[in-house]
Amino acid sequence: MSREEAKKTLKDLGAKITHQIKKGKNPEIEFPLRNLSNIIYDKKSKTLKLGNKTGSRSFFNVSHSKKFLQTVEVASVITDKLLDSGKHSSLRDVFYMVKKTIPGTKVNLVDEQTESDKAIEDLEVITGLSREQLHVNANKNGSVAGKVVIEDKGDIIDWSKLGSGGWAIPSNVEEIKFKKVDAAYILYMEKAAVWERLNEDKFWLKQNAIIIASQGQTTRGIRRLLQRLYEEHNLPIYVLCDGDIYGAYIYSVIKYGSIALAHASERLTIPGVRYLGITTDDIEKYDLKKHFIKLDEKDYARIKQVANYDWFKDNKEWQRQFKMMKDNKAKVEIQALSARGISFISEEYLPKKIKNKEFID
Amino acid sequence: MSREEAKKTLKDLGAKITHQIKKGKNPEIEFPLRNLSNIIYDKKSKTLKLGNKTGSRSFFNVSHSKKFLQTVEVASVITDKLLDSGKHSSLRDVFYMVKKTIPGTKVNLVDEQTESDKAIEDLEVITGLSREQLHVNANKNGSVAGKVVIEDKGDIIDWSKLGSGGWAIPSNVEEIKFKKVDAAYILYMEKAAVWERLNEDKFWLKQNAIIIASQGQTTRGIRRLLQRLYEEHNLPIYVLCDGDIYGAYIYSVIKYGSIALAHASERLTIPGVRYLGITTDDIEKYDLKKHFIKLDEKDYARIKQVANYDWFKDNKEWQRQFKMMKDNKAKVEIQALSARGISFISEEYLPKKIKNKEFID
Repeated sequence: MSREEAKKTLKDLGAKITHQIKKGKNPEIEFPLRNLSNIIYDKKSKTLKLGNKTGSRSFFNVSHSKKFLQTVEVASVITDKLLDSGKHSSLRDVFYMVKKTIPGTKVNLVDEQTESDKAIEDLEVITGLSREQLHVNANKNGSVAGKVVIEDKGDIIDWSKLGSGGWAIPSNVEEIKFKKVDAAYILYMEKAAVWERLNEDKFWLKQNAIIIASQGQTTRGIRRLLQRLYEEHNLPIYVLCDGDIYGAYIYSVIKYGSIALAHASERLTIPGVRYLGITTDDIEKYDLKKHFIKLDEKDYARIKQVANYDWFKDNKEWQRQFKMMKDNKAKVEIQALSARGISFISEEYLPKKIKNKEFID
Repeated sequence: MSREEAKKTLKDLGAKITHQIKKGKNPEIEFPLRNLSNIIYDKKSKTLKLGNKTGSRSFFNVSHSKKFLQTVEVASVITDKLLDSGKHSSLRDVFYMVKKTIPGTKVNLVDEQTESDKAIEDLEVITGLSREQLHVNANKNGSVAGKVVIEDKGDIIDWSKLGSGGWAIPSNVEEIKFKKVDAAYILYMEKAAVWERLNEDKFWLKQNAIIIASQGQTTRGIRRLLQRLYEEHNLPIYVLCDGDIYGAYIYSVIKYGSIALAHASERLTIPGVRYLGITTDDIEKYDLKKHFIKLDEKDYARIKQVANYDWFKDNKEWQRQFKMMKDNKAKVEIQALSARGISFISEEYLPKKIKNKEFID
């Protein structure tokens, strides 16, 4: 969807509200509810989604009117300041742009960023537009390398010619164009240090792969980049995380979505993504027991919680992994493979696992 | 210094130890102490430095022998696995590479990463080589854009042609070569979202600047990149942080060094760097009082602590800033400038401040 179409969607919303006012009606906006009771795991599409419950927000309602105003003001700022100029902004910037005193009162329209954040999320479900389409960017993080050429802001960028750094992934990848994609698969990893190992070993060239890393959480920019490559170029995606419950969760967010962003699942989840490692089986196979890190109470609690999520509950292979984690009383990091040799990961572990299709779905 | 020279330095260290053993002496290594009592602020060079106190570590000393072994083992791993192959590694990887059972015992050479980290730091002060020269990388983080062309790993990379992402700064920038540097100054900022704003506005092109951002802490890779551009190309560096005590500290680490890395000051500090904003004066000037964030107890405690650091203690301008922070009872973020307009920062605030040389040193 183009910027003009996004603008039209917001203008239509404004026109609808003005129309209600002109007819002497109480202006009202309807939208799908985003609270926990309306978040469901859809087994068919294998994604977290919003259910059918809807709510509404009207101006002449004491408990709604401030939120109604916040939604309208955010819509106005996004239309006039962002979509009109073609510029992008962060959540924090939008907060400062809408933070003002309501005329004729001493009341601030928003006091905390959570209020403008929620208004932006509301606007996403009201309009069906993603935050990216609304030109509100999430965090910037991560690097990528591989035999891919893109066009972005008029620049032709070759991901195979960016030395030891790679291309810094922007927070918003909606407008980049893939000019050439020469790869058999994508390897996504949670650790930048592992990416540097693979990049120094020219893993992406030798294995004909695209390597992508964040540092910690997978940003929306990275998730959209993965999804676009997956959908537009049919590339399989393999996920490489630490062998612990947090690694399993990072994988599940990419695959099934998250509770907080259930309304955006369609634009962020990748049902075909596969988990490559570290698995609890790798621990036996690659003799990593010496490098165990003991689980603490927090780890056990999180295993219990994640194992009960709808999208893991009936998955036998993952339940087996979770059980083994508890039996081992331990977790293992990706970097433990370094004990087998500095390039063991790029020369042995990854090529072998990928060749033998040792994935967990 | 080349990789061969670094290797020779480590081999010489090994030869010295072997020589002592052959002569029937207790093998011993001498080095400058790195504890607080030996960290001084040198007013002349304006950097945090190690003093003249030295310590030694010998093998036949119950309280030294494990640390002695750790240092020797780390030196051996770095020589054989890293410098020999030309490969680089992270602190975490080195930990796993040296984590093994001491032959004939049930004792692990290292149990925690802090032990191998300390051994690497010891090796830095023993040999005078930096961690980067020892091929042990720190974290990877940050992006850069500007009219600069570099050569890295055989690739020619033009920082002005990398779209909305920029070049992802690697953890180690020792080997990059600057082929063309066309800029009047460098602007370093602590926030990636601000970098995205300036990059979208092509600030670096319009202002003939290089823009560099991390997200949070300034990595060693970024500090070395700043230092190399400063020293090799005489570029002034201006720092843009939130108007709070943490921003002041981020600036001071780049300028004077940090206690934890005092032994590496020479390779990391940049005495000429200048603080651009947000200052407490900007708050008045740009009417940002509406966007105050109240200080909490932690903020007050940190102000007290930072204001007493040797490198701030006698600095009148900074003491004035700290006092005003306390008087205002508030801090201000860079993004508060967005309240004045989405591109106010790139079109008004920054060009004006830089033109009028409104810096704090």
